[in-house]
Amino acid sequence: MSVITVGTMAFDAIETPFGKTNQIVGGSATYVAYAASNFVSSVKQISIVGYDFPEEEMNELKSRGVDLEGVEIVPDKKSFFWSGKYHNDMNTRDTLVTDLNVLADFNPIVPESYQGAEFLMLGNLMPKLQMSVIDQLTTRPKLIVMDTMNFWMDVAMPDLEAVLKKVDVLLVNDGEARQLSSEFSLVKAARSILQMGPKFLIIKKGEHGALLFHGEHVFFAPALPLEDVFDPTGAGDTFAGGFIGHLAKTKDISFENMKTAIIVGSAMASFCVEKFGPERMKEITKEDIDTRLNQFVQLVNFDIDLV
Amino acid sequence: MSVITVGTMAFDAIETPFGKTNQIVGGSATYVAYAASNFVSSVKQISIVGYDFPEEEMNELKSRGVDLEGVEIVPDKKSFFWSGKYHNDMNTRDTLVTDLNVLADFNPIVPESYQGAEFLMLGNLMPKLQMSVIDQLTTRPKLIVMDTMNFWMDVAMPDLEAVLKKVDVLLVNDGEARQLSSEFSLVKAARSILQMGPKFLIIKKGEHGALLFHGEHVFFAPALPLEDVFDPTGAGDTFAGGFIGHLAKTKDISFENMKTAIIVGSAMASFCVEKFGPERMKEITKEDIDTRLNQFVQLVNFDIDLV
Repeated sequence: MSVITVGTMAFDAIETPFGKTNQIVGGSATYVAYAASNFVSSVKQISIVGYDFPEEEMNELKSRGVDLEGVEIVPDKKSFFWSGKYHNDMNTRDTLVTDLNVLADFNPIVPESYQGAEFLMLGNLMPKLQMSVIDQLTTRPKLIVMDTMNFWMDVAMPDLEAVLKKVDVLLVNDGEARQLSSEFSLVKAARSILQMGPKFLIIKKGEHGALLFHGEHVFFAPALPLEDVFDPTGAGDTFAGGFIGHLAKTKDISFENMKTAIIVGSAMASFCVEKFGPERMKEITKEDIDTRLNQFVQLVNFDIDLV
Repeated sequence: MSVITVGTMAFDAIETPFGKTNQIVGGSATYVAYAASNFVSSVKQISIVGYDFPEEEMNELKSRGVDLEGVEIVPDKKSFFWSGKYHNDMNTRDTLVTDLNVLADFNPIVPESYQGAEFLMLGNLMPKLQMSVIDQLTTRPKLIVMDTMNFWMDVAMPDLEAVLKKVDVLLVNDGEARQLSSEFSLVKAARSILQMGPKFLIIKKGEHGALLFHGEHVFFAPALPLEDVFDPTGAGDTFAGGFIGHLAKTKDISFENMKTAIIVGSAMASFCVEKFGPERMKEITKEDIDTRLNQFVQLVNFDIDLV
């Protein structure tokens, strides 16, 4: 079962209350790949990098079964660069620098060898690019999951609406769900967004967990209470990678299995935030993941007798 | 199994984005009693009211088995009055008026008939008054649950610390937990507070649910995602009433049963916020409660195979 992931591969410079990094590796597709490759042997990456993206990072991904045929390397430009500073609560951040570099020319091409993949993860990108990937696939994937952000609601809403009609699952945060629906109540926001195309909606609330909506059903997954959230960068993409990775591994896209997939995504995200960038994602083992999943079971499990 | 509840009986005037009330009945002990009386036949109230507190409200409580012998009625003073306005997000509010009235003279007296109660709910009050109630009990209750607020941390910290040493469960919100512990991380805050006396700590996060800490164990209960939170006034006290009511009904104060009690408290709070004041609490039936508890089971229930 293979997963195509489309998104950025980038450099980030991050400042949090716990420390500061120089340029480290980041990007939505990077985080998705690190997370998903724990569950499926075939992750097919579509992205763009410049001459400066480290070869050892490419090799690290390849060693995890990530296919990089769809990653364009531009020999005379730099990779996308983002720099940001997190506030004390870690839920808000200021962007300090955004250098698009190669991203300004990104025109994702789906390699022939990627055709037939049953799962597609569209990372947060210009909606036209997300649509272009969907259009290039000769067979519609079994499941299309899409991430987006408020910026595209501001500047490309018609394009975004067109993509929404083509996808199965939308991933947004609470603020974005409110903006997209013009509803403050997340229940009302969900009802409105589920009319726009996606059959499933995941609203991410950072340290406050995530909600899955489908028809009149709702499921809630907590975030694991951690001693310290060291660096939240990439947590949302890691969540997405764990989510789609579990679905692809189990080949089951029912609402019931999506609940489990959201717990898996939350578990992966809980690792991501423990160190800067994707560093922690490179260290964790199958045993670490199982231990963490068990912590989630303990965290929410209760017995009740309805008498 | 009986529950003593100590706290205010008051009038509130409330403004929310959905509407505005004139003076309606409120107060922490009122909400605790309405919630707990769904689970135990004997709720013993300790409070103080003025000449203006409505007799029909007293009768309503009595009809639910709430013993009002411990409620002092001051013939020449008005009842405690609070007025507040909620912001759009319903998690923050401005206090407009606080008229202590009878509350300035509150000196809680435990009636002889209340002695021997096995559960004690200390509502948010001046710590000296909470201590006075504990001191008057000839037999220590099986479980003492205590609510407090940031105000007492500011003006009466030594008294508060003394009460903390005497109680089993502390209920605070996330901001109060941070203030009490001087820790931003709730996990670290919990560890610090559990050194101050209570063996169990519940951190309420409003629409983001509640956490229960005990030793190295943690449990999370979500809030039910609602279309509209109409009026959050009393939700925390209603939560407390459902929590202690379930524990008293089942006579089981284990960590495992406290998990269930927190779900019960969350379910009761989810009713409270549906209408102004305690109005909704007067309407709900056993069937309503069971239906809602089942919604909580659906909300967090997932299957996972750790392979």
